[in-house]
Amino acid sequence: MTRAQLFDHIKTRQSFLCVGLDADPKKMPAHLNGDVLAFNKAIIDATRDLCVAYKPNTAFYEALGLDGMRILRDTIAYIGNDHFVIADAKRGDIGNTSRYYASFAFQTLGADAITVAPYMGADSVQPFLEYKGQWTILLALTSNKGSQDFQHASQDGGMPLYEKVMRRAAEWGSPDQLMYVCGATQAEKFAELRAISPDHFFLVPGIGAQGGDLAGVCRHGMNDHCGLLVNSSRAILYAGEGEDFADRSHAAAKALQQQMANALEKYLP
Amino acid sequence: MTRAQLFDHIKTRQSFLCVGLDADPKKMPAHLNGDVLAFNKAIIDATRDLCVAYKPNTAFYEALGLDGMRILRDTIAYIGNDHFVIADAKRGDIGNTSRYYASFAFQTLGADAITVAPYMGADSVQPFLEYKGQWTILLALTSNKGSQDFQHASQDGGMPLYEKVMRRAAEWGSPDQLMYVCGATQAEKFAELRAISPDHFFLVPGIGAQGGDLAGVCRHGMNDHCGLLVNSSRAILYAGEGEDFADRSHAAAKALQQQMANALEKYLP
Repeated sequence: MTRAQLFDHIKTRQSFLCVGLDADPKKMPAHLNGDVLAFNKAIIDATRDLCVAYKPNTAFYEALGLDGMRILRDTIAYIGNDHFVIADAKRGDIGNTSRYYASFAFQTLGADAITVAPYMGADSVQPFLEYKGQWTILLALTSNKGSQDFQHASQDGGMPLYEKVMRRAAEWGSPDQLMYVCGATQAEKFAELRAISPDHFFLVPGIGAQGGDLAGVCRHGMNDHCGLLVNSSRAILYAGEGEDFADRSHAAAKALQQQMANALEKYLP
Repeated sequence: MTRAQLFDHIKTRQSFLCVGLDADPKKMPAHLNGDVLAFNKAIIDATRDLCVAYKPNTAFYEALGLDGMRILRDTIAYIGNDHFVIADAKRGDIGNTSRYYASFAFQTLGADAITVAPYMGADSVQPFLEYKGQWTILLALTSNKGSQDFQHASQDGGMPLYEKVMRRAAEWGSPDQLMYVCGATQAEKFAELRAISPDHFFLVPGIGAQGGDLAGVCRHGMNDHCGLLVNSSRAILYAGEGEDFADRSHAAAKALQQQMANALEKYLP
């Protein structure tokens, strides 16, 4: 999916919602008897019109055991071609090895994008970027407490590590193939992040159904292609526990989509 | 496997060799018809007495398709309990998600250790360390060119990022459960790395059958528990292409083991 196609979906659906398919059998409605694929299909059917992206985290599928990746592949196939599919895998290794990870995400699983960790530098990221038509989503600023440990420290007395990652990576990949993971507990931070990177899409984790800072993130972070994919996982997946769980998920996604429609109306340049 | 048990194996086998099981069907002897499990078993049988650890890189097994993890699980089961098994996966995510990765590596696959990327900080590493009796091997200084991009830069005007990772992580995990990946193109660097971290084991990639700087790494990096696991992958796995490939692998591993026996004689305090 190209950046223009993604933006078209955003405008058509009035949404930049990414649904995190982090399916946990222990949290699923009991009547599904742990059938993750059935759960995922129900969630996808309930949210398809309200989102532009799905983001299964590979850890949840590895945790299902040796057949987990088959369930993930089947989930991605069920999503089809009208959504942007992100394998949230946070991979990264020396060049030769990253090539295998890229092949798994893009070819075996059929994802449009994979999340990648930047610690090992340019030659660990390059093999993902070599897949033309697919996307690399690089960890820049994460929203967890541990982001304070290394990401916020200045590098060589200059900019903080997350900013250096964003600026350096902009030399490796264009906004047509590279995004950044940008979480922030304070929405104002997105003004700085957007100044660092005017054109790249940001994948934004950590915003729940309550939509806490969604408006703030949009005010500071939106660009002329929207430039934001805002993820919600648990708040949508586990909105209900009964036989009507998919309706509840639909309602939770709908509430977010409506906030996003408002934000697009208000902040899209 | 405890640190004492690992050191016992090192003394008994006079080796601190880690064989990297990065099985690539395209490089395997033709007569095996791409049977990775058969290849791995032959390599393991040929090197069992000469090494103390095996390190399959998960990327190579993901690249085998949806059954790759089954082959990896069967490979690890075949190794048995007398070797230290490292799932080289370079994982790391927010706490909840890292917990799933840990469960996959330690429970589903049955590995003793997993490699972890530090970018997301303490709470991304902690879930791995919570597995008592298993090991976390944190990326500190990698041997690829891209290590120059972020790892060598000073943090907040002080120590370089790789050193900060090592010092900070030493607060999270003891030398009985935590190791570091320390590659270095110059052996002298190991004097500095060992000064930073006197007691932790280092997993050292990037030393081929030629054993280039092995003696230098040992001179500067060995501690009173040896403290080094030196990996070799391709130089052992693909030492031969014919029906005698396992004999060639044995010979390549034997050459390294003999250098290691000499180094233990010379440098073990």
